[in-house]
Amino acid sequence: MLTSDLANQNAQNAQDWRSLAQQFAQIVGDRYVVRTQEELIAYECDGLTSYKQQPALVVLPKDTAEVAAVVKVCDRYQVPFVARGAGTGLSGGALPLADSVLIVTARLKQILDVDLANQRVVVQPGVINNWVTQAVSGAGFYYAPDPSSQIICSIGGNVAENSGGVHCLKYGVTTNHVLGLKVVLPNGEIVNIGGKIPEMPGYDLPGILVGSEGTLGIVTEVTLRILKAAEKIQVFLADFDSVEAAGATVSDITGAGIIPGGIEMMDNMSINAVEDVVATNCYPRDAAAILLVELDGMAIEVAENAKQLEAICYKNGARNLVSATDPAERNILWKGRKAAFAAMGKLSPDYYVQDGVIPRTKLPYVLKEIANLGEKYGHYVANVFHAGDGNLHPLILYDNSVPGQLERVEELGGEILKLCVAVGGSISGEHGIGSDKRCYMPEMFSEADLETMQWVRRSFDPKNIANPTKIFPSPRTCGEGAKPLSKEELESKFKNVPRF
Amino acid sequence: MLTSDLANQNAQNAQDWRSLAQQFAQIVGDRYVVRTQEELIAYECDGLTSYKQQPALVVLPKDTAEVAAVVKVCDRYQVPFVARGAGTGLSGGALPLADSVLIVTARLKQILDVDLANQRVVVQPGVINNWVTQAVSGAGFYYAPDPSSQIICSIGGNVAENSGGVHCLKYGVTTNHVLGLKVVLPNGEIVNIGGKIPEMPGYDLPGILVGSEGTLGIVTEVTLRILKAAEKIQVFLADFDSVEAAGATVSDITGAGIIPGGIEMMDNMSINAVEDVVATNCYPRDAAAILLVELDGMAIEVAENAKQLEAICYKNGARNLVSATDPAERNILWKGRKAAFAAMGKLSPDYYVQDGVIPRTKLPYVLKEIANLGEKYGHYVANVFHAGDGNLHPLILYDNSVPGQLERVEELGGEILKLCVAVGGSISGEHGIGSDKRCYMPEMFSEADLETMQWVRRSFDPKNIANPTKIFPSPRTCGEGAKPLSKEELESKFKNVPRF
Repeated sequence: MLTSDLANQNAQNAQDWRSLAQQFAQIVGDRYVVRTQEELIAYECDGLTSYKQQPALVVLPKDTAEVAAVVKVCDRYQVPFVARGAGTGLSGGALPLADSVLIVTARLKQILDVDLANQRVVVQPGVINNWVTQAVSGAGFYYAPDPSSQIICSIGGNVAENSGGVHCLKYGVTTNHVLGLKVVLPNGEIVNIGGKIPEMPGYDLPGILVGSEGTLGIVTEVTLRILKAAEKIQVFLADFDSVEAAGATVSDITGAGIIPGGIEMMDNMSINAVEDVVATNCYPRDAAAILLVELDGMAIEVAENAKQLEAICYKNGARNLVSATDPAERNILWKGRKAAFAAMGKLSPDYYVQDGVIPRTKLPYVLKEIANLGEKYGHYVANVFHAGDGNLHPLILYDNSVPGQLERVEELGGEILKLCVAVGGSISGEHGIGSDKRCYMPEMFSEADLETMQWVRRSFDPKNIANPTKIFPSPRTCGEGAKPLSKEELESKFKNVPRF
Repeated sequence: MLTSDLANQNAQNAQDWRSLAQQFAQIVGDRYVVRTQEELIAYECDGLTSYKQQPALVVLPKDTAEVAAVVKVCDRYQVPFVARGAGTGLSGGALPLADSVLIVTARLKQILDVDLANQRVVVQPGVINNWVTQAVSGAGFYYAPDPSSQIICSIGGNVAENSGGVHCLKYGVTTNHVLGLKVVLPNGEIVNIGGKIPEMPGYDLPGILVGSEGTLGIVTEVTLRILKAAEKIQVFLADFDSVEAAGATVSDITGAGIIPGGIEMMDNMSINAVEDVVATNCYPRDAAAILLVELDGMAIEVAENAKQLEAICYKNGARNLVSATDPAERNILWKGRKAAFAAMGKLSPDYYVQDGVIPRTKLPYVLKEIANLGEKYGHYVANVFHAGDGNLHPLILYDNSVPGQLERVEELGGEILKLCVAVGGSISGEHGIGSDKRCYMPEMFSEADLETMQWVRRSFDPKNIANPTKIFPSPRTCGEGAKPLSKEELESKFKNVPRF
């Protein structure tokens, strides 16, 4: 009897989803609604590949009007939707939910306006990050935020996750470069927030949308600030006998008032992984750590800072210092850093990228503690990170085919995050919270702080359909403090299934 | 009968307010509750002196706990409250409302923490803007946002209004320098948002609090970013035969990739007003316009940029160019600009400061249009402004003792704002919306855009007691489209009176 009820319910659900798919097809065209099991596989995770979940449907609208129409249908039937850009995110922000619609913005890929005189570019969210720079570099401009994935990640995803990159030390992360947004709200309404002018009156809604990981709406147009390209760029590679010496060098550089475009650090394990895979032949395999420092600005300014930088490196025991100004040579120096995550695949069947922030002054202490934690858990931890910002990326090596390893690695990752918070830092620098880190939010925020964020969330999304369960912890999604679901929670869990 | 009812009601109200005052006195001490007519006069307006309104009571708490306790009382009785810092704001953000409690943060004036290594300072909101720089300048740091009122305005007010200043071209406005806030929410709860680390996960609540003009809560602690003082600062004064030539110079400077600390422009009327009052003896009285340009950075960088700057000025027809690097001499060059608003009092019994933003490329056109508008309305308009940001401050001269002049001047101010919006600009650059400009919000924002902001407002302040009627337009507060109050509006208007 119960079984038969369930079967009936399942049959009813299947029919409901078919009817939903038809409604979406009327909006976007039949070929842009993905519904077969085989095709849905392509969308079952983002860059955080350890979590997988197929959505019920994938819809690929082509413009703002279609996004709004699709969201309106979701709103009408209270069907949850998850927005996805290029799917390169590392915290599961675009991880589908069961019984949800995945709305993919890949077809919104036009650069709508280039206003060089006022240094603004308006793009659709599916535009790939480095297309923006390509569109304006001929005129001497560029778009500053540069995640390592910049040749494949899209601006929409950058906005959702408030992405960083190696040049964010000097120029700031995505939110510092987004001036205006066109947004489809969770009720399907279209609003324009911000504009071409910075610091518009009223509440700073662009500020709150950037980094909200698809929980407040779907961005369909983005007004970006572009910067004048520097007259000269010089990249330095310094290598050290100890991680402490490299860390002290970072502190001394910023302490001297030099603000490099970026300062990256890699430890011995990362250096060797990278040399094995991409063979830059310039990262010394026996160094305990290397620093990559990029100076940019007027030629005369770079030259003066370079002198100071050299002195600081040698004072702190740098064994060697090389530099490059020619674009091709600079790329060689950067190549290993940009390939570092991928290179870990050579050392280990799997790796887990952590993303935490610490005050710069705590660098040597935290790196030592991370090594201790790695030893305690019996896992190698390689370190590749934005040293100037204190934004760490410990890479924990493991083998997913060994039962229990993923769980232990996640626990180790959590210990590292708690360490970051303990020294006054943060559980995320640039990868977002998504589904991966929501359980650590209470480490950083009190209940009242989190409740204040929920006020904002509920005000935008009272039906809780815009990427629900992401960012914020709940007993259901977090192991600790988990308890049996209440009647309300059960109902809420199943209310997502469409009922016409 | 009706009269007697009203008299009874008034008597009841008076008793209610006496009882409220007693409750506040128990929290903050009797001497910190201001209730007499004579004392309340001091609080009847902020820097926007053309609007005056006495609050029912003024309360001066000394710390976060007292602010929270006072707000909790307001919440319990649904009594509106208005937060006030130093009262120097220019848009009426801290203008009291009738039947409201004015909560003044002047006693919260401690610098709580100075962390030079991580370039952070934590202050209470009553700390005066330039105390921050004074506290860290010995160690070679400074706090960048510098409103003209910086020797009297407080950080709390700067946060509420997202204040700018002459150096915001290069370094950004207040929001770019606020990392964390302790906030008393409209329900009296205390939350910590942001922190010492930039780009914390979750929603960017500090971003939305900064510039919210007291409508989302009262800030009681502010974590500020401080900057390393530049090695060299050089101020240039160039004078021109035409406003157009000065405007073209501004475009050429930024177009050349030079980012000065600030670029200010003053027109002939402002120059003469200033020379009459503060006698800098270096602003040429016959110039159509002067530019003040401050270059800062490494000595070698300033020297290089100075060469380029000189060439650009002379190319655009500058008649003369003087400069200063010595702090005392730099102050002389800046003195006139800093005193410009006050000097207008010499030219005219009253003046009305407008604050609008335009895209830099529209500068010559907009200045000419403002002159035309001034002629049409029969009022002199002096221009003193942040030319580099396109942030205009037209000063409209008038005589408040002549009936009808204020109204015409407000209308002229409104025309100037509409002109700013028409060329793609904004109705406020740094003074906020407050009570002065809420009627112009629909010029910039659609109904849906404004409603989205209201979502946020209502989520923080469902009882509508935190600085109600500010920022957002309503038929009641705006002349245009005004209609008789509905029953609900009437009730809402009078619901503010305490009823125990």
